[in-house]
Amino acid sequence: MELSKLAEEIRNFEGVTRKKEIKNVVNNFNFEEEYDFDIIADFGDDAAIIGLDGENALLLAADGIWGKLLEKDPWWAGYCSVLVNTNDIAAMGGRAIAMTNIIGIKDCDKGKELLKGLKEGIKKFGVPVVGGHTHPDAHCNVLDVSITGIVKKENVLRSDSAKIGDKVVFAYDLDGAIHETFKLNWDTTSMKSKKYVRDQLKSLEIIGENHLANSCKDISNPGGLGTLGMLLEVSKKGAIVDVSKIPIAEDIKIDAWLKMYPGSGFVFTTPENNVKELLSTLEFVGITASVCGEVKEDKKFIITDGKDKEVLFDFGREYICGC
Amino acid sequence: MELSKLAEEIRNFEGVTRKKEIKNVVNNFNFEEEYDFDIIADFGDDAAIIGLDGENALLLAADGIWGKLLEKDPWWAGYCSVLVNTNDIAAMGGRAIAMTNIIGIKDCDKGKELLKGLKEGIKKFGVPVVGGHTHPDAHCNVLDVSITGIVKKENVLRSDSAKIGDKVVFAYDLDGAIHETFKLNWDTTSMKSKKYVRDQLKSLEIIGENHLANSCKDISNPGGLGTLGMLLEVSKKGAIVDVSKIPIAEDIKIDAWLKMYPGSGFVFTTPENNVKELLSTLEFVGITASVCGEVKEDKKFIITDGKDKEVLFDFGREYICGC
Repeated sequence: MELSKLAEEIRNFEGVTRKKEIKNVVNNFNFEEEYDFDIIADFGDDAAIIGLDGENALLLAADGIWGKLLEKDPWWAGYCSVLVNTNDIAAMGGRAIAMTNIIGIKDCDKGKELLKGLKEGIKKFGVPVVGGHTHPDAHCNVLDVSITGIVKKENVLRSDSAKIGDKVVFAYDLDGAIHETFKLNWDTTSMKSKKYVRDQLKSLEIIGENHLANSCKDISNPGGLGTLGMLLEVSKKGAIVDVSKIPIAEDIKIDAWLKMYPGSGFVFTTPENNVKELLSTLEFVGITASVCGEVKEDKKFIITDGKDKEVLFDFGREYICGC
Repeated sequence: MELSKLAEEIRNFEGVTRKKEIKNVVNNFNFEEEYDFDIIADFGDDAAIIGLDGENALLLAADGIWGKLLEKDPWWAGYCSVLVNTNDIAAMGGRAIAMTNIIGIKDCDKGKELLKGLKEGIKKFGVPVVGGHTHPDAHCNVLDVSITGIVKKENVLRSDSAKIGDKVVFAYDLDGAIHETFKLNWDTTSMKSKKYVRDQLKSLEIIGENHLANSCKDISNPGGLGTLGMLLEVSKKGAIVDVSKIPIAEDIKIDAWLKMYPGSGFVFTTPENNVKELLSTLEFVGITASVCGEVKEDKKFIITDGKDKEVLFDFGREYICGC
């Protein structure tokens, strides 16, 4: 595919453009008081980091399941609500503790399917739902899930800490299938054992403990390049990425692949000397990882196919989420 | 008001009957795995309690703002989302750490008002929102908030631990006003200083630290008697309560009062010898508290007006939330 066309598609991809609204919301939450806990990081990462004591930090994240998804396949929405939240904690190098959720039920049959999917997600990922709230008379079917996790402060994987000269590493579990209803969901977990998927999340803890990456983000709605874009934006960096080096599943076209929300997918930046161990840690749990580029000082996110180059995002004059 | 009529009204009160659906939802979340953390209590209390280490436990709670409220007064919905969550943590004797929220915006103008209210709530109650998710293209306006808090295990105030012979204490801040739009909201905080309202929440920590109550629940949507009903249900106890002894604001009728969702209101059960100190701790922060009854072994929740008696709930054959 022509590189400029690819860049245009990614820039205008709904998974990316939806993020623009974040800034208007987040600006309301500036917190300038002294208080008992240490907000190490809030908006802009996969989870917020709150210092708990000398050694540990809590990780707090929340995800609302996209209404379109919930309406079409409530089972999958329930299942994914667990997947996305546990991945948010893993992407910080953390260990999930528990979830709470808020369920709004408008259609009883959809509510039942949603709960079945949630139940399966809990069984697969091994993190309990311990509380929440139910609206039995909602205007809309709604599923919002929050998760709390824990991590040692020295091991946390952040997304705003990419360093100039870091290698950019894309990592995907390529063993999966496109979801039958949602063509941008690359399902890699529903067919696998709980041990397998939990080992994949555990590998991120190991990466954190062994300091094998400077920054990390799990690939979500914005797709691979959109996610890296968000990481670079908050790191106040740019990068050059060769899209032909990104691990890709068989028979999937590059433009579709780069918009996929994978069941297990991450982007990292890491110094050259960590690359080998980072890649082998991921490969050990069935995640295919490759060096695809490098972090630059100039705030332009450039993609290449080995021949042409294209500016995908220029953070000097535009933003993805504005965090 | 005739006692039997009052009982009938409370039993059929929407704030109470809505809770019936909880059972069907919660039954999906049985968690039977071994895992790294200790679920001390999950559904059924104002917050879940997760053992963190030898001394401390995390408190996790979540609340979804009732759609009706959000549509009519989004500012108040935003503000209340902070109020209800901080009260949930306080009712466990805990200290709030931080919140995450999920906002779905369908109507831009309502979204803005919601955010303004949230901002004011954060300023008033002093607990930050550190993360969350925004849907800029939602089908419905939605606001769901989660909160994490912390408490020493030995100080936690639970709602399933009422003991036979405990005195039932109702506690309300009577200095307030009925909300102009929501006639069942007794607003006691929007007109008060942040110090005042925070001291009120802090008093619950003191009550926990000094072990001044066996059980506690903050009065919410089900109103005073409905809330006590939920406490008794999970404690597997009954009680007799003289409704004429419940602290009540001037010029409010009893049937309306007992359905009120107060800005600051709690129900406790405590042994006789703790009553004096419990009451003075609450009075010190402007919360009027009275002994109104006693916890009984028989699972009937009986109300009296000093002359007649009426069975409000019989937990031997019915349930409020089924937790």
